[in-house]
Amino acid sequence: MMKIDVLSLFPSMFNGVFGESILKKAQEKGAVQYSVVNFRDFSDNKHGQVDDYPYGGGAGMVLKPQPIFDAVESLSTAEEQNKKPRVILLCPQGERYSQTKAEELAEEDHLIFVCGHYEGYDERVREHVVTDEISIGDFVLTGGELGAMVIIDSVVRLLPGVLGNEDSPVLDSFSSGFLEHPHYTRPADFRGMKVPDELISGNHKLIEEWRERESLRRTFERRPDLLEDKELNERQQKWLKEWKNDRN
Amino acid sequence: MMKIDVLSLFPSMFNGVFGESILKKAQEKGAVQYSVVNFRDFSDNKHGQVDDYPYGGGAGMVLKPQPIFDAVESLSTAEEQNKKPRVILLCPQGERYSQTKAEELAEEDHLIFVCGHYEGYDERVREHVVTDEISIGDFVLTGGELGAMVIIDSVVRLLPGVLGNEDSPVLDSFSSGFLEHPHYTRPADFRGMKVPDELISGNHKLIEEWRERESLRRTFERRPDLLEDKELNERQQKWLKEWKNDRN
Repeated sequence: MMKIDVLSLFPSMFNGVFGESILKKAQEKGAVQYSVVNFRDFSDNKHGQVDDYPYGGGAGMVLKPQPIFDAVESLSTAEEQNKKPRVILLCPQGERYSQTKAEELAEEDHLIFVCGHYEGYDERVREHVVTDEISIGDFVLTGGELGAMVIIDSVVRLLPGVLGNEDSPVLDSFSSGFLEHPHYTRPADFRGMKVPDELISGNHKLIEEWRERESLRRTFERRPDLLEDKELNERQQKWLKEWKNDRN
Repeated sequence: MMKIDVLSLFPSMFNGVFGESILKKAQEKGAVQYSVVNFRDFSDNKHGQVDDYPYGGGAGMVLKPQPIFDAVESLSTAEEQNKKPRVILLCPQGERYSQTKAEELAEEDHLIFVCGHYEGYDERVREHVVTDEISIGDFVLTGGELGAMVIIDSVVRLLPGVLGNEDSPVLDSFSSGFLEHPHYTRPADFRGMKVPDELISGNHKLIEEWRERESLRRTFERRPDLLEDKELNERQQKWLKEWKNDRN
């Protein structure tokens, strides 16, 4: 069973997400165990202070090293002498998160997430406690909590036994290397908007060809970067040539 | 006041996030109003069915157009005849989210988020209801809810009056074009790990120079792409040259 611990000053932010859908089911199935720790409880300051002014001056506050060091150490169990937990810091300067990283983290036994909340982190936390600094993208969030939830969600769904057949991931756009083709369901005519003839033809060859073409078209239109190192079959090359001609 | 509506089959996922910290304060200050709608309530099917099998066969289910069309229409108010709401679909095939997009969305009066949950979307929803398809990154999540929370957080913090001085964003790594320099706070010696001499020197010129150098160094080491089109001053160019020589 994977163990996931989160250090946050706003632990109840996680209630909704851990208590619903796949993440909840994964815990019920015994694939994962979550715990959220308020690292303010580890402050050795009688006022529960966890941040302080930055050395050298300037605006904003910086998270003190002591509560985070102590909280992380309290979460590392005796059995883990050989395999240390991965300690992940969410920050805009970190490595960009990707599906490859999700697959790597899904192999671990124990993940600890450190979430700051608009304060900076004391550099000694980065250097001596943290094993991975991760950013989920080039945008500014008010804290690390949402980034932690994103990573947890993407990792937990990869754990064995978590996704049943009923959750078959129609949306796994990255596995084939192309973006997904469009989907349609009933009714065939909704307010005059119709499902393409190919899909209701009952002709499997036609359907497969339509899907292959529309998947390629969408990739060409939206994410041409994904096609760069891709080997294409003959008809895919022909379609691509036609669309490029149409553009000119 | 900005209005934010979310369509989701798991509305309680949002409780924790909307009920804490900056997002909660923003609502209390009257800068934004959230509402989460379960679009199952809009199903015209007596069993509350919202998805159905895909035309053309295959695994997985597809969200039906009717409940989403009706839910979005119910949220568009009469006053909005001139300025339509932005209707945002979270999906892996969408435009990559960025701080520029956050700034653009922060100018709007009304955002509606459509969150599917491992099902596909009927293409007619994309074509006729949705104004923006957004992906927060190249990784697979179990649903659109976390992406919606990420976007909402990054947009709401930009609304006028939401961030007070006390929340002064130490972490705004993208505003200067460089990554942030390291931060330190007390104690100056924590378990033998020390704060750099420059920062406790009391010499402002030395402190500024240290910060400028470390900010550049971190950008060089972690995100050299950010330096590509950047104009550097003389000492920045000198540092960069030294580090490049050190590498060789």
